[in-house]
Amino acid sequence: MGDRLTYAMIGGGQGSFIGAVHRMAIALDGTATLAAGAFSSTPERSKASGAALGVAEDRAYGSFGELVEGERGRENPVDFVVIVTPNDAHYPAAKACLEAGLHVVCDKPFTVTSAQAAELRDLASAKRVMCAVTYNYSGYPMVRHAAELVRTGGIGAVRKVYAEYHQGWLATDLEKTGQKQAAWRTDPAKAGLGGSLGDIGTHAEQLVRFVTGLKVEQVCADLTTFVPDRRLNDDASVLLRLSDGAKGSLTCSQVCVGEANGLSLRVYGETGGIVWRQERPEELTITRLDGSKTMLSRGIEAVGPRGSMASRLPGGHPEGFIEAFANLYRGVGEAIAAKRAGRSATGLGSEVPGAEDGRLGVRFVEACLESARGDGWVAV
Amino acid sequence: MGDRLTYAMIGGGQGSFIGAVHRMAIALDGTATLAAGAFSSTPERSKASGAALGVAEDRAYGSFGELVEGERGRENPVDFVVIVTPNDAHYPAAKACLEAGLHVVCDKPFTVTSAQAAELRDLASAKRVMCAVTYNYSGYPMVRHAAELVRTGGIGAVRKVYAEYHQGWLATDLEKTGQKQAAWRTDPAKAGLGGSLGDIGTHAEQLVRFVTGLKVEQVCADLTTFVPDRRLNDDASVLLRLSDGAKGSLTCSQVCVGEANGLSLRVYGETGGIVWRQERPEELTITRLDGSKTMLSRGIEAVGPRGSMASRLPGGHPEGFIEAFANLYRGVGEAIAAKRAGRSATGLGSEVPGAEDGRLGVRFVEACLESARGDGWVAV
Amino acid sequence: MGDRLTYAMIGGGQGSFIGAVHRMAIALDGTATLAAGAFSSTPERSKASGAALGVAEDRAYGSFGELVEGERGRENPVDFVVIVTPNDAHYPAAKACLEAGLHVVCDKPFTVTSAQAAELRDLASAKRVMCAVTYNYSGYPMVRHAAELVRTGGIGAVRKVYAEYHQGWLATDLEKTGQKQAAWRTDPAKAGLGGSLGDIGTHAEQLVRFVTGLKVEQVCADLTTFVPDRRLNDDASVLLRLSDGAKGSLTCSQVCVGEANGLSLRVYGETGGIVWRQERPEELTITRLDGSKTMLSRGIEAVGPRGSMASRLPGGHPEGFIEAFANLYRGVGEAIAAKRAGRSATGLGSEVPGAEDGRLGVRFVEACLESARGDGWVAV
Amino acid sequence: MGDRLTYAMIGGGQGSFIGAVHRMAIALDGTATLAAGAFSSTPERSKASGAALGVAEDRAYGSFGELVEGERGRENPVDFVVIVTPNDAHYPAAKACLEAGLHVVCDKPFTVTSAQAAELRDLASAKRVMCAVTYNYSGYPMVRHAAELVRTGGIGAVRKVYAEYHQGWLATDLEKTGQKQAAWRTDPAKAGLGGSLGDIGTHAEQLVRFVTGLKVEQVCADLTTFVPDRRLNDDASVLLRLSDGAKGSLTCSQVCVGEANGLSLRVYGETGGIVWRQERPEELTITRLDGSKTMLSRGIEAVGPRGSMASRLPGGHPEGFIEAFANLYRGVGEAIAAKRAGRSATGLGSEVPGAEDGRLGVRFVEACLESARGDGWVAV
Repeated sequence: MGDRLTYAMIGGGQGSFIGAVHRMAIALDGTATLAAGAFSSTPERSKASGAALGVAEDRAYGSFGELVEGERGRENPVDFVVIVTPNDAHYPAAKACLEAGLHVVCDKPFTVTSAQAAELRDLASAKRVMCAVTYNYSGYPMVRHAAELVRTGGIGAVRKVYAEYHQGWLATDLEKTGQKQAAWRTDPAKAGLGGSLGDIGTHAEQLVRFVTGLKVEQVCADLTTFVPDRRLNDDASVLLRLSDGAKGSLTCSQVCVGEANGLSLRVYGETGGIVWRQERPEELTITRLDGSKTMLSRGIEAVGPRGSMASRLPGGHPEGFIEAFANLYRGVGEAIAAKRAGRSATGLGSEVPGAEDGRLGVRFVEACLESARGDGWVAV
Repeated sequence: MGDRLTYAMIGGGQGSFIGAVHRMAIALDGTATLAAGAFSSTPERSKASGAALGVAEDRAYGSFGELVEGERGRENPVDFVVIVTPNDAHYPAAKACLEAGLHVVCDKPFTVTSAQAAELRDLASAKRVMCAVTYNYSGYPMVRHAAELVRTGGIGAVRKVYAEYHQGWLATDLEKTGQKQAAWRTDPAKAGLGGSLGDIGTHAEQLVRFVTGLKVEQVCADLTTFVPDRRLNDDASVLLRLSDGAKGSLTCSQVCVGEANGLSLRVYGETGGIVWRQERPEELTITRLDGSKTMLSRGIEAVGPRGSMASRLPGGHPEGFIEAFANLYRGVGEAIAAKRAGRSATGLGSEVPGAEDGRLGVRFVEACLESARGDGWVAV
Repeated sequence: MGDRLTYAMIGGGQGSFIGAVHRMAIALDGTATLAAGAFSSTPERSKASGAALGVAEDRAYGSFGELVEGERGRENPVDFVVIVTPNDAHYPAAKACLEAGLHVVCDKPFTVTSAQAAELRDLASAKRVMCAVTYNYSGYPMVRHAAELVRTGGIGAVRKVYAEYHQGWLATDLEKTGQKQAAWRTDPAKAGLGGSLGDIGTHAEQLVRFVTGLKVEQVCADLTTFVPDRRLNDDASVLLRLSDGAKGSLTCSQVCVGEANGLSLRVYGETGGIVWRQERPEELTITRLDGSKTMLSRGIEAVGPRGSMASRLPGGHPEGFIEAFANLYRGVGEAIAAKRAGRSATGLGSEVPGAEDGRLGVRFVEACLESARGDGWVAV
Repeated sequence: MGDRLTYAMIGGGQGSFIGAVHRMAIALDGTATLAAGAFSSTPERSKASGAALGVAEDRAYGSFGELVEGERGRENPVDFVVIVTPNDAHYPAAKACLEAGLHVVCDKPFTVTSAQAAELRDLASAKRVMCAVTYNYSGYPMVRHAAELVRTGGIGAVRKVYAEYHQGWLATDLEKTGQKQAAWRTDPAKAGLGGSLGDIGTHAEQLVRFVTGLKVEQVCADLTTFVPDRRLNDDASVLLRLSDGAKGSLTCSQVCVGEANGLSLRVYGETGGIVWRQERPEELTITRLDGSKTMLSRGIEAVGPRGSMASRLPGGHPEGFIEAFANLYRGVGEAIAAKRAGRSATGLGSEVPGAEDGRLGVRFVEACLESARGDGWVAV
């Protein structure tokens, strides 16, 4: 355990939802130990969060700049940095870390503009460090099995894709009630211009690419702000044209009253199809030409290696959101070990979404915004 | 029983699928008795079908023209005519019947062009006869309850609609194998230009209007023919702009391998939502702001009068497709009785989709075809 | 159509639920025409019901005795008689019909005592007429496919069976409110002593035998009357020992609040299992050693001949309770035709549950009552 | 973090499944740090496991006796001991720990005989230390909400309970293949005589008590060994008589081919019912007298405090098996803190199943074994 990895966190202080999720995901498998952080926008609150989280006082920094500076000067700096701030701070924080040669794990959407994303991608490449983006839904075992199945011809050439991400939590003007999550996510200055597309649509878009291996080539989008006075869209319907002649639709919404976190993916090919729903993540349905459907579930023999290596428990013992997230971090750990050993990452380490993945998501949002302004098809 | 209604059928001879369905739906409740028909395109086959169906020889006609002529001359002509031919023959057959003052029940899509549909609508109106269109999915009790709920404010003002109709039976080139249903439905001369939109998309479009009471104002469509050599589209994705600022998407496909008859409707309003799936037609889920979902099923106390009057059995005793179809015919029976009595139709009789309903479906298809040619929004 | 079958009904007058179901099931496929009846316990009400149902006045009889007498004297008597009275009248009515050489279709539970059932069975045999018992749930196509699968080794030797029939409609003292169905079904004089076992448990018991082909050899039962003042049990839990070493449990209840008609069957063998639920009757799940599950549905290629011949519509077009019931009557029609032709019934005609089936159900109830009195295992 | 709790583990060395689960559950929330252990039955393997788990060499003990001795002699001994050995070692290990005044968390079934269990219960009480039993399924938020609902009258007085625990993993003679889990669980010397009842039935039995608050007063059981040569039962069907006149059935099986971990509970009272299934643990269905069903899910407003405090993530972000397990450990942490502070445990700390809970489970198994030998009802 002397060589267990350590990490720092930028953002994720008291009151943050997603910071705690990242920490649980890292703790679950003992992937790394939290050793430093710039948890909040003020030094006092950052130190208070650090103390509550067991971080040594001198490593609870007042800003991401101080963190990079401080860790750089230490004999044993952290092995990687997790960035979980609101969207607008991803770019400067990631840039500072990458320039200092620190591995980065950044929340999605990666950046505010695709130009920033390209810059970070190139910087990581030049510095030979990892820059991962936490598209955590691709960490579910049954998503990984779906990808294995679809990419190896299990349903024939892909024809049609239906991706949905329907939530209802912003169906009212929650941002006016002081709810912190709602406030920053509907504020263009903090969240960028993507609205529901940036917040959740990008997860669906990445799943499409992750499972099918196809590119999103063109989009035709209709964006709507249903809640009065809201400054960003809270609903989007997008037609997709994918590579190799496949077609699709992607709908995301935060005003589908009563829906909690309704992310789903359906892919139909020439000889079969797959259906996956995030709220029942352990189940994958495969449709067949003869009309029968096969239901696979995590942990059974019939699931292949990509799904199995992302699994911890026997079938029927439900794994969920944190476990899927933790699969990304197990991959991060493996990828760092591989880099140190001068070898290619294997297993989970080869499945970690990277900066180019992040850039594609940001570019997808940009293209949808362009399409919605002009009512037509836009190239991604 | 002396005054039980009688009907004639145009089309629906031996080998027809949908003709038999209409007959079972009419028989189920004893709504009417088959007394005449022009069942096939040749007099011999029409007579053979008539004989098999117990129709008197002199009322098994060789063509719809002869049927209209023959019934007109009888003391007790049939009370209504059911038209279940391929799409192209709907218009001339309906026109002949309406001109003769016969009530008409016509399969969907109503006509090939919306101009034809408008003409039939006006003709029926001028002749004061009924011209019903068998949008049979609106006959399900839980669809009717959904309409009652949504139209009376049960989910607040409607914001978003998701309509789907996904089948897989045309995922291969079935029309080349001699399968009769596939052959005419993929033949522009028989089916019109609508392809999957005309064949199944119009059902989904009607459900949207039936349940929400909103108009489909604009469409933006992407149509695809996935199976090589097929002459009509077999897949469509359509963005919808509805009246009162509501938005939606409608996807229909006949290449979703393994899906049988996946028609579904989801509607979200300001305070709730409804989810209905045709393959489990007895269930209706209502979503709520507090995140709970209520599952209603046909036959329970909690279902209101519109759903209840379309129900025959206690809850838990599944009613299905034929029963829903039969509800339309019970409505037809009631509507005819009302016309005779010089009163307005009530109950099921007031729920029968009519010619204007049929016209809207045809116009929807036309608008989607226009949009798909020009890549943009088109007014319906 | 001149040779369409005709039938008479005993019971099933105005206000009867099940009589109307039988008539719809017979009408759906045009199996037979209602030509006579003794619909109610008083001649006046019987005639009124007959008139409403289109039965000629002279064939609307005042009692089953008159009906047998009257039809016997006609040149063209009815082809079969349907008995849908409360349970206590099944035996005398069936006996009179059988003695007159009329085919009988009798509702379940067949009789009040198993001795009566054996007598009727032997009488039918001696008279060479059909005596069918309407175990209608075995008419579902997917139940028939399950039987085909299980009986031909599709899941290996059967080990364990779980049969359930859970309703909630008698959770309160509905019989005190004047509700007719509740009143007679909880009255020992009308319903026999079986209570919930006789009313619904026998359906579950028959499904066990129908699907597995095994005998119920021993039972150990606990019966309960939960609703105060009720005179019959409204809940039963029964342990089963089947032939060939299989085991099982059967629970039926009419006090499971909120459950409508929750009949289900699960059977596990050495190499697989099947799961079927009446409220979603079109679906059959098959479980496998590798942990995958296959979902079959009515109408698809993967369903074998026994299921397919009980099907009318393409997959995805839901068939329900009436259609399943109608499959029994199509079988009755075929069986009568076979008898007339002096050949063995085939197809649906070979699947009609008979008098011995009915006797086994009555004996099952008797054995459970014995067990519940003495707290131990009783041979059936 | 200086005062974070520490724990030791007895059992759970390399190759153990459940030991790793306990460690993940403790790590997830940072409840305690693993500081010592007697992980295996040989000192060498124990040390090797300790090293792999980051335990200091001098605290990786060769036996539970050494562990108790060693920790007793330290200034800062572990705060609690987790016992995850095969069943036969629970009793001696727990006794040693309790006698030394160490808090104990013991896997289920608690002991081999109920007399042992009673002794441990009394010993813990005398020593004023905690003796928890990891009935982990009661840690699910929706189980806790169900308990809150049922115990506060939400479904009226309980009438009927259906508890099931159906697995298929022992449908073949897996124990002959060298599979370690199968080997000890089917070995009477290691597992006790309970077979499937001890291994999984006790979880179902505890859920019945946990959710309803009722006692299991009498049982009538049929036990079966389906797989040839197996030395313990692999299937059980049990009729239950509960306190206050409630009735029920409990079935558990390890030969239900294709079922993974099918634990479920249904409870019906005078005015409603609840349905919960472990494989979809986030969902709880409530049935109602009017026939509607309400589906609640973890994380929504409509879930009360008992469920909410066992929840970490917003609704729709699935929590699973490890999270439920971790809720027990958060309770253990809180209970220890409460003991130190001389106050009663609150919140999760008040929900930890204890030694009496464990004893009831063992006694339930004993009563079932007695009943199965004599074919009748036995008092628990």
